[in-house]
Amino acid sequence: MKSAQNTRPAHRPSLASLQQCVAEDLLKVNQVILQKVQNDVSLIADVATHIVNSGGKRLRPALTIACAKLCGYEGERHIRLAACVEFIHTATLLHDDVVDESKLRRGLATANDIWGNKSSVLVGDFLFSRSFQLMVEDGSLEVLKILSDASATISEGEVKQMMTTNAPQTSEADYLEVVRGKTAALFAAASELGAVVSGTIDMQENLRQFGMNLGIAFQLVDDALDYAADQQELGKTVGDDFREGKITLPVILAYQLGTADDRAFFERTLSDLDQHDGDLETAMQIIKRLNTIALTFERAHAFSEKARSHLRTFPSSAVKSALEEMVDFCVDRAF
Amino acid sequence: MKSAQNTRPAHRPSLASLQQCVAEDLLKVNQVILQKVQNDVSLIADVATHIVNSGGKRLRPALTIACAKLCGYEGERHIRLAACVEFIHTATLLHDDVVDESKLRRGLATANDIWGNKSSVLVGDFLFSRSFQLMVEDGSLEVLKILSDASATISEGEVKQMMTTNAPQTSEADYLEVVRGKTAALFAAASELGAVVSGTIDMQENLRQFGMNLGIAFQLVDDALDYAADQQELGKTVGDDFREGKITLPVILAYQLGTADDRAFFERTLSDLDQHDGDLETAMQIIKRLNTIALTFERAHAFSEKARSHLRTFPSSAVKSALEEMVDFCVDRAF
Repeated sequence: MKSAQNTRPAHRPSLASLQQCVAEDLLKVNQVILQKVQNDVSLIADVATHIVNSGGKRLRPALTIACAKLCGYEGERHIRLAACVEFIHTATLLHDDVVDESKLRRGLATANDIWGNKSSVLVGDFLFSRSFQLMVEDGSLEVLKILSDASATISEGEVKQMMTTNAPQTSEADYLEVVRGKTAALFAAASELGAVVSGTIDMQENLRQFGMNLGIAFQLVDDALDYAADQQELGKTVGDDFREGKITLPVILAYQLGTADDRAFFERTLSDLDQHDGDLETAMQIIKRLNTIALTFERAHAFSEKARSHLRTFPSSAVKSALEEMVDFCVDRAF
Repeated sequence: MKSAQNTRPAHRPSLASLQQCVAEDLLKVNQVILQKVQNDVSLIADVATHIVNSGGKRLRPALTIACAKLCGYEGERHIRLAACVEFIHTATLLHDDVVDESKLRRGLATANDIWGNKSSVLVGDFLFSRSFQLMVEDGSLEVLKILSDASATISEGEVKQMMTTNAPQTSEADYLEVVRGKTAALFAAASELGAVVSGTIDMQENLRQFGMNLGIAFQLVDDALDYAADQQELGKTVGDDFREGKITLPVILAYQLGTADDRAFFERTLSDLDQHDGDLETAMQIIKRLNTIALTFERAHAFSEKARSHLRTFPSSAVKSALEEMVDFCVDRAF
């Protein structure tokens, strides 16, 4: 985390400025979301409402709103498109729960714990379909292309992630491909939509790259925090990735930099999933000794700098500053 | 099955005429499908190729092709749209496998047996996204609306089905709602697309209703055959629905018409899933005694007659006869 702090102002960046910029529109997005998950089939309404209300920070719809404002957009299309983005994200979370058997997400029981695999798969499918219905209502083939491409890339990323599971010898390049797919593609699409609705074609690629690099930075930090001991005090589960044998950068680098004993440890615990009491603590000690959380933050910082660079051509404004601070927050957050 | 045979010509209807009508185009559809599931991510290509090659009859894409021909269409758009329809169907099968833990589908091991839940969910998501990408390439918002609406209805139907699981007291009306969603909605959309690509707007609702009623008839027969003893000789698994506690019309009617003992039996075996050796045979005996397979076929026959009635306004042609024979086949098939 040090490298990020060295180049940042003394006060900790937060999401407050961004939240202030998007608050009014985000209320409307939430209304659309809650309205569109209402359903005669009570289970759909229950699961969808649960997951939509699970306290997520709505980062992705906030990106769509903020990027639309950054481009001077004054219409209403971005509200529904931000809801589309959140539906795709939520569907992915539901399907990810089935896949990873994660027990806690944002400190609440997952939908999967409460309703089971079936509900997670099917309600995810419903939200995904609902998202496409909303896009069709919007009526832009370009929007449909951006979000259907993003959806395909997300599922490719999720499959790639599955294929790297239990393989600590995964290369950093392969890992970044996973991250681009499973996380950054939707950040990129969410940001790009801001340029599309406002017709600011010359900024479209800039905003796409902004979102892509921000998404990579965000995911790298997320993966680092899963091995950061002090997260436990904040009520976050630590070690989810370890227990599932999910391979992330702190482990990939530790496997590369470690001793033969370190590698044997990761092969037993992550490849063979032969885990015992104290193994998570040992993993965290190896990672601490080899400094790979700091190295992961360093990589994240480089991507966040790239993200910032794609905002450079926009004139100064409150929303531009808020987006810049959001970038800093993503690599300097404690939760 | 008798009632259907009473009003039909002596020779058994088959799919041969329809297959002949669509053969050339269906080859092109298969080429599109195989081309679009190719992927750098080998697991996606493997699972998708497996499920696409699993020997399905391609009924749904055949409907799109045949209905386009029925409307005199001579272009090429229907090829890719038929592939979209098959992708949605295939994604649904993959997700259904996760949900129902079915062991055999079409006599082959399911993708889920070979690759596991994760792959089924994620590759299903990929195929679903791929389908929307193909629709976007086609460029018609009307097509996108029809298929995104169908997708939402399918997932609603699947959730409704899940909610009726283990509940033999489900009403016939609720069961038909499930069938409309999980099966008939895609038959309806597949057929309607034929009118859309050809611009035969006045036939759109007819073809939609044709597909909807055909799909209901098809599913009712499928559900009846799951309790038909002679299916076992044909290599089909019998009793899948029973083992899973899935509630279908033969059971719903048997529960309504049966004795208190019959009802207690279904409550033990289907509601409580407390099943022992010989229970499937007992269920089949109750169903035979109460004649509910024949009653289910009677319902199917009524829907197939409705389906045929929606073809009436089309002038005579080889493809019209083939579609009529397909309707008969769906309620008089032995597999």
